[in-house]
Amino acid sequence: MSRYLITFSYDGSDFNGYQRQPKLRTVQGEMEKALKQINNNKKTEIQASGRTDKGVHALNQKAHFDLDIDIEEGNLKMALNSLIPDDIHVHMVEKVDDTFHARYNVKAKEYMYLINMGEYNPLERNYVYQYNKPLDVVEMERALKYLEGEHDFRSFACSEDPKDNCVRTITQTNLIRDLRDTNKITILFLGTGFLRYMIRNMIGTLIQVGEGKLKAEDIISIIEKKNRQAAAPTSNPEGLYLKNVFY
Amino acid sequence: MSRYLITFSYDGSDFNGYQRQPKLRTVQGEMEKALKQINNNKKTEIQASGRTDKGVHALNQKAHFDLDIDIEEGNLKMALNSLIPDDIHVHMVEKVDDTFHARYNVKAKEYMYLINMGEYNPLERNYVYQYNKPLDVVEMERALKYLEGEHDFRSFACSEDPKDNCVRTITQTNLIRDLRDTNKITILFLGTGFLRYMIRNMIGTLIQVGEGKLKAEDIISIIEKKNRQAAAPTSNPEGLYLKNVFY
Repeated sequence: MSRYLITFSYDGSDFNGYQRQPKLRTVQGEMEKALKQINNNKKTEIQASGRTDKGVHALNQKAHFDLDIDIEEGNLKMALNSLIPDDIHVHMVEKVDDTFHARYNVKAKEYMYLINMGEYNPLERNYVYQYNKPLDVVEMERALKYLEGEHDFRSFACSEDPKDNCVRTITQTNLIRDLRDTNKITILFLGTGFLRYMIRNMIGTLIQVGEGKLKAEDIISIIEKKNRQAAAPTSNPEGLYLKNVFY
Repeated sequence: MSRYLITFSYDGSDFNGYQRQPKLRTVQGEMEKALKQINNNKKTEIQASGRTDKGVHALNQKAHFDLDIDIEEGNLKMALNSLIPDDIHVHMVEKVDDTFHARYNVKAKEYMYLINMGEYNPLERNYVYQYNKPLDVVEMERALKYLEGEHDFRSFACSEDPKDNCVRTITQTNLIRDLRDTNKITILFLGTGFLRYMIRNMIGTLIQVGEGKLKAEDIISIIEKKNRQAAAPTSNPEGLYLKNVFY
């Protein structure tokens, strides 16, 4: 048995999310179909660093799987890319120790979210959130900094179960203005882990800050309330990218 | 009767080209469906600056049409955008003289073509030609300059009819390297008019120059031959954008 770690990207537009679901087109489903063909027609499970939701993209997703056969990394990369559909691409294949786990070993993850404040762009409708109105970017940048650090992020979590641990650490955030198109901003989050919908719930709240409905300092009390109702609605999936996974 | 000129963009990925065709989804077909609703359910024809082929995009396509009713430009823009699908967007509506014609009055057109010489990118598969190998960009840039000027472009035309006039003028070309991603190049063509497939046939030939199969100077003899067989195959549509139309 050989364990492999792969780095791959996908366009989330035409998938029903990452996770395998019966009868629906998913990233995991397509990957496992290809792996089965490579692994002597044996059902082969893939373990990603985590799932991504419907419409969300990945630039450097990571996953591991075991093959009965031993294949050279470059050949496995080629074989996989010839079998998977054109909206997924494997960038790198590495042999790893049998104890390596793509989810349990994650040290940090980086996400990015793209917003267009300018006119609607049909060519980027699946790749950049089309907000299409001006936002107070300076105030958003101030608010973003209140999300940094170790917090109980229950206000930004979908979880209803009080027993769930919602404490996470956001180690770094950045709001970057596009120098070529001043109507576009990129918001980056680096953290040890993120709850489901957490980034999109934080973005939804940052947008309300940008609209003037909330002040940057309101982030503090929203976090303190530990109540999903305290924060804003979930923002659209198409602006979100899993950018990097660190081990 | 009022004549309107519109500026609009579209994502060519899910259209069977610009031109109306029975039973197929086309840009013209979708636009005319919307116009009929606005124009008191009267069949209303739209006249674009020219067609674009299947998979080709437009950033600032121009078209005119006549309405029986008189609508303020801003309101017409809003009405159109609410009726057309999300892969088309109207950026501007202008009232024009009854003698204005979006095709006959064209003075110049600008096209751009995007090539990725780096690794395959699934997120840009419909928007950048995925060549995915290095090219000799310096030689391509030299070759590009031989296409400038007034020439009989029959070698780059799909026309088989010797009576067709294939003389066109390319007033300016540019090859631009992406400063943020050195594997990406943009090739720009400004000209008084272009024959069908002409840009994609020139790009196919430039790629052969970049591969070392042709020298930059070979462009001269390819033009002189006035024979489609002298030039290279047509390049992929997804890298091509109609960027501007000038009157």
